[in-house]
Amino acid sequence: MGYGTYLALIPPELLAGKQLVETPMRHERQRAEAAVNLAVQGQAVAVVSSGDAGIYGMAGLLLETLERRGLTETIPWEVIPGIPALAAAAARLGAPLTHDFAVISLSDLLTPADTIRRRLQAAAEGDFVTVLYNPCSTRRTTLLPEALALLAAHRPSDTPVGFVRNAFRDQETIWIQPLAQATTEGVDMRTIVIVGSSTTRRIGRAMFTPRGYYPPDNV
Amino acid sequence: MGYGTYLALIPPELLAGKQLVETPMRHERQRAEAAVNLAVQGQAVAVVSSGDAGIYGMAGLLLETLERRGLTETIPWEVIPGIPALAAAAARLGAPLTHDFAVISLSDLLTPADTIRRRLQAAAEGDFVTVLYNPCSTRRTTLLPEALALLAAHRPSDTPVGFVRNAFRDQETIWIQPLAQATTEGVDMRTIVIVGSSTTRRIGRAMFTPRGYYPPDNV
Repeated sequence: MGYGTYLALIPPELLAGKQLVETPMRHERQRAEAAVNLAVQGQAVAVVSSGDAGIYGMAGLLLETLERRGLTETIPWEVIPGIPALAAAAARLGAPLTHDFAVISLSDLLTPADTIRRRLQAAAEGDFVTVLYNPCSTRRTTLLPEALALLAAHRPSDTPVGFVRNAFRDQETIWIQPLAQATTEGVDMRTIVIVGSSTTRRIGRAMFTPRGYYPPDNV
Repeated sequence: MGYGTYLALIPPELLAGKQLVETPMRHERQRAEAAVNLAVQGQAVAVVSSGDAGIYGMAGLLLETLERRGLTETIPWEVIPGIPALAAAAARLGAPLTHDFAVISLSDLLTPADTIRRRLQAAAEGDFVTVLYNPCSTRRTTLLPEALALLAAHRPSDTPVGFVRNAFRDQETIWIQPLAQATTEGVDMRTIVIVGSSTTRRIGRAMFTPRGYYPPDNV
């Protein structure tokens, strides 16, 4: 069970003999209810998320749905980890996450914008490499420029910002800009944005956060 | 090429016909140099990390080594993402990472302890779910209790803290404690610690961070 776009990514041989339940985008609560209904009927149900189901994915809502229906102890469940979008995007950019980082979704559908701003501020003050999920939607376009401006106030102007759209999939796009000049052109909900920390820098076509194996002076 | 413990995790059929270069723990710079030397000789070299090579793994140091030797443009390279330890641990604990989180290594071998403290403080102020890598070594035992105390000053006393040792491997161990009573017993370098945010709570045997699909009052 899952959003059609995600089901289409599954190799056909894994789907042989299985019933496919395609669910529309949004409507996550109904999807979780439907999955639990099938499990109550005795079926083995796999709810598929893109990337890792535990990182902004369906794992939490499924647990919550089991709890609300008093089924936590009666329906066996397991979370299967995957390669999160943050790891796929980082790999395409080089090695931006080889030191401490913070992960923030800019979606304000379920989270108040002020909570998001508070976290951006904390990420800036902690000098975390900062991974932004859901950076822009067609409706919401101002939080990303705001986030970049907030981080730019705390980091060198040439701090690299990496953008990866559709990592390891069709129409993959990868680009890197200096923080002070970063624009939001081409960014959509399927883009992961990684803003470097104060020590992140370019190496050739890549961006890279040193772990400290070599002192900075020696570079 | 890699640390022997990691090479031993690779299914034998993937190793057929390949030369294995086992490298000792630590000595990461020498390992990177040796890998680059083999690549310069024209060999296709895969340096293996545990989990994801881009998250506290070897990817960054390899890029840095190519740069120092002026080989960034001449030796083709690629980073292959994997399932990071944070995603594996989260899956075993339930769904602690379905909202914003910060990732901090407590290893002070290459990072000054004051930088680590600054990031812990920022993670506390941002109310991030906080993932701790390298929480304890035989030599370094005080930073983890300090980190837990710092976070406990900002979060409810019953905030769940999840501990996962050897996720999805032999001798896997999983336990959850309330933050105010959390102890460091049984924690070692192979343990991932996930401290909940102010909204993280228990569901049955799991820990769970709500994304906001249901208002808190309705639970």
